[in-house]
Amino acid sequence: MTHTIRIIGIDPGLRRTGWGVVDSRGNALSFVASGTVKAQLDGELAHRLVTLHAGLTEVMQQFKPDEAAVEQTFVNKDAGATLKLGHARGIALLVPALAGLSVAEYSPNAVKKTIVGAGHAGKEQIRMMVKVLLPKAEFDGDDAADALGIAICHAHHRVSLARMMRAAG
Amino acid sequence: MTHTIRIIGIDPGLRRTGWGVVDSRGNALSFVASGTVKAQLDGELAHRLVTLHAGLTEVMQQFKPDEAAVEQTFVNKDAGATLKLGHARGIALLVPALAGLSVAEYSPNAVKKTIVGAGHAGKEQIRMMVKVLLPKAEFDGDDAADALGIAICHAHHRVSLARMMRAAG
Repeated sequence: MTHTIRIIGIDPGLRRTGWGVVDSRGNALSFVASGTVKAQLDGELAHRLVTLHAGLTEVMQQFKPDEAAVEQTFVNKDAGATLKLGHARGIALLVPALAGLSVAEYSPNAVKKTIVGAGHAGKEQIRMMVKVLLPKAEFDGDDAADALGIAICHAHHRVSLARMMRAAG
Repeated sequence: MTHTIRIIGIDPGLRRTGWGVVDSRGNALSFVASGTVKAQLDGELAHRLVTLHAGLTEVMQQFKPDEAAVEQTFVNKDAGATLKLGHARGIALLVPALAGLSVAEYSPNAVKKTIVGAGHAGKEQIRMMVKVLLPKAEFDGDDAADALGIAICHAHHRVSLARMMRAAG
């Protein structure tokens, strides 16, 4: 029996957090929705996190995904920027977990390898392949496209895992 | 008119997050409570953040502070550890902000300078001065003692700010 699993992918950032929702049924994938939660750059850091929390919570309530995947954003050289990114990632991991979902994490390279077939693919290639894999996909920017890529990556890996589990037992 | 302001200080960490609550009335400070939220080391990162969120939310509901202050933990050399610390800080900033509190941030050096008088003070000096400033204070470890230090630091700075505002107006 093959049933539909709805997956949310999240590409967290303190300014812009992309999200993308796809339905996975066996090997078939379909686009549900995508978007970007934007936080004001001014104002207390804590209240920017509240904006992100509210935005992602609203998306969860609207689309009710079954599983979540968050980009394991790798760290750049600036420790202050890394810490700030960690704040946004904390919220991106928390919101689906609070809703009782399991939350997988994938590195940008894992996402690129799964979607484009090469770990060094550029943003343009990701966008193109997201459009090939999800012809009806619409996205309002790179963050939403990346989030759809993360959701596709999780759909692929969870199917592989299910196959492995069937093969094993 | 001097009224009592209840302050929560939070020293975030992915394993142990210290918290401390003090009441500030004019220049007088009194100890209310302190403790440590501990997260399991195993298990999904997202679910460790849920544990932290639940623990801090419970403290907020029990003690109903008016203002919050979080340590602006500075970053060590390991980018992966910095990112993880960022996750915990994100939750520590989010929980009081969700309750509508303003959330101040103080660097460890600012806390040490305020409490001990020197930015290079050690943990032992912080604990000793917390006991001098809050004779009734009890804490179950360094994280809770540091959190009380952060709350004391905020109490001090908000009084100075109030004085400045009175002098200005």
